[in-house]
Amino acid sequence: MRKPIALVTRIDEVSEQEWRALIAELLPEESIQCFRDMSDIERKAAEIAIVANPDPAHVAELSGLSWIHSLWAGVERLVAELGVGAPPIVRLVDPELSRVMAEAVLAWTLYLHRDMPAYARQQRDRVWIQQPYRHPSRLTVGILGLGALGMAAAERLSQSDFAVKGWSRSPKDASGIECFSGDEGFDTLLGGSDVVVCLMPLTNETRGLLDKARFAVMKEGAALINFARGAIIVDTDLIASLNAGHLSHAVLDVFQEEPLPAASPFWHHPKVTVLPHISAPTDPHTAAAIVANNIRAYRTTGQLPQTVDIRRGY
Amino acid sequence: MRKPIALVTRIDEVSEQEWRALIAELLPEESIQCFRDMSDIERKAAEIAIVANPDPAHVAELSGLSWIHSLWAGVERLVAELGVGAPPIVRLVDPELSRVMAEAVLAWTLYLHRDMPAYARQQRDRVWIQQPYRHPSRLTVGILGLGALGMAAAERLSQSDFAVKGWSRSPKDASGIECFSGDEGFDTLLGGSDVVVCLMPLTNETRGLLDKARFAVMKEGAALINFARGAIIVDTDLIASLNAGHLSHAVLDVFQEEPLPAASPFWHHPKVTVLPHISAPTDPHTAAAIVANNIRAYRTTGQLPQTVDIRRGY
Repeated sequence: MRKPIALVTRIDEVSEQEWRALIAELLPEESIQCFRDMSDIERKAAEIAIVANPDPAHVAELSGLSWIHSLWAGVERLVAELGVGAPPIVRLVDPELSRVMAEAVLAWTLYLHRDMPAYARQQRDRVWIQQPYRHPSRLTVGILGLGALGMAAAERLSQSDFAVKGWSRSPKDASGIECFSGDEGFDTLLGGSDVVVCLMPLTNETRGLLDKARFAVMKEGAALINFARGAIIVDTDLIASLNAGHLSHAVLDVFQEEPLPAASPFWHHPKVTVLPHISAPTDPHTAAAIVANNIRAYRTTGQLPQTVDIRRGY
Repeated sequence: MRKPIALVTRIDEVSEQEWRALIAELLPEESIQCFRDMSDIERKAAEIAIVANPDPAHVAELSGLSWIHSLWAGVERLVAELGVGAPPIVRLVDPELSRVMAEAVLAWTLYLHRDMPAYARQQRDRVWIQQPYRHPSRLTVGILGLGALGMAAAERLSQSDFAVKGWSRSPKDASGIECFSGDEGFDTLLGGSDVVVCLMPLTNETRGLLDKARFAVMKEGAALINFARGAIIVDTDLIASLNAGHLSHAVLDVFQEEPLPAASPFWHHPKVTVLPHISAPTDPHTAAAIVANNIRAYRTTGQLPQTVDIRRGY
């Protein structure tokens, strides 16, 4: 009898049962149980946990775990909550997630490029003005973070004739994309971009990285898209830069606190587009297939997929 | 001495002078003059007119014209105003215009696909709800009109993984695009599309074509994008269909009267996005180059580029 696999989440029970059914259907040889339905003996016996925003106390009860598979790509909260003594963590790396994120980056870059915020204001005020059009090659989009998501987004923008620059911690190379790295490269990218797209992981290094000083480096009239994590931005500094007329617009999909509190000044700021964390929703079907494949490969070979570097944070 | 070329427009004088300068720079061997600056003798001597929404009485004064070059792609108004006795008309066929139109169709299809109208409403009401995401292959976009603009738009959407269908008067063939033609094909396309994009020319056949009966054929919850001409749509029927909840949204860039009058119900309709005729602005630089090339070819060979079929209207 194989040791059980525990599904531990703080998502609603209906969604959790859907996830369980999807994964169980792909792994009929396994016993996959929701944490809430497991006995104490089963919890101690569990070898693998599949998690989505789990209660750390629940994970701690699974004292026999060999490893943890996250259903999400972003694991900074999981890493922080479980601490350094936690079992190895595998995060979701889903090509479909990259495609959806690249589509979102293209969609909201076109939203800015084709002046949709201005036209929405004009419609509200019944104003008929044609904003000047420029070829996309005259709009430079700078991508912060060239991991799987950032690289897919950069390529998609490049295919649509935008001028694309990218920054990553360690040097990278990609055809058609001007790549920068290191501290100096960071400011070069910020200062040379009309639209900056944040796709960095949240780590100790990126927390609060986009602050007053960084916004000042950005071009007059530049726009910001944050599809990564809210805590990378210093909110008050962003609002000050928008109010001063230095930055022209921000598209924010992620926030320090989610759902965004009703009292947040972002909701009604005329230069902010608020999205409810929808840039790259996990597709349960493709995600369940990837999790199932990783678990089956582990059962066959005893090898784990690449795990999260706890100190680096991703 | 070559006979002069007359530039006849009802656009503002500054823009008209800019057009004249751009074309004159490319054709230094020609005498290109604005109608308002020409003597009676020069007007009678003009062999070619370059026009943008000209006063028909001004064109009539150019009694020696061999042909007319429109600076715009849409010529239905020109054809109607000049009548059947007018000289041959050449309309602008600009590959850059097709690219910009295809970009606009992609941008506003993504606007609908990624639920931007819903998220704008939610932001106004401080509501945090994640709309369900579906893969673009599950969204069928039907293009009405497969001329240069429609075909470019269809290909661009297909490259972005949307399911694309197209309709044209005469049968056409394009890889990756399910093509329909004729009256029966028209209703098949309407009934099978989640988003219908209108890119047909305005002719006697298309005027008022999208009416109550056609909207009823469309799928429950379908959306409409009109980037062609306002008069193809029966406005009151569109509003009735939106109000009844049959159609979900309309993106309108063109209207029966432009600028859209302040009293129009479209301005403040919650299911309508109003754009000020900006889907595919003419780029004066590329357009001037095309006009100059056509005129130079005519001077060399005596041959006209393809002219407008007056009865067909495009």
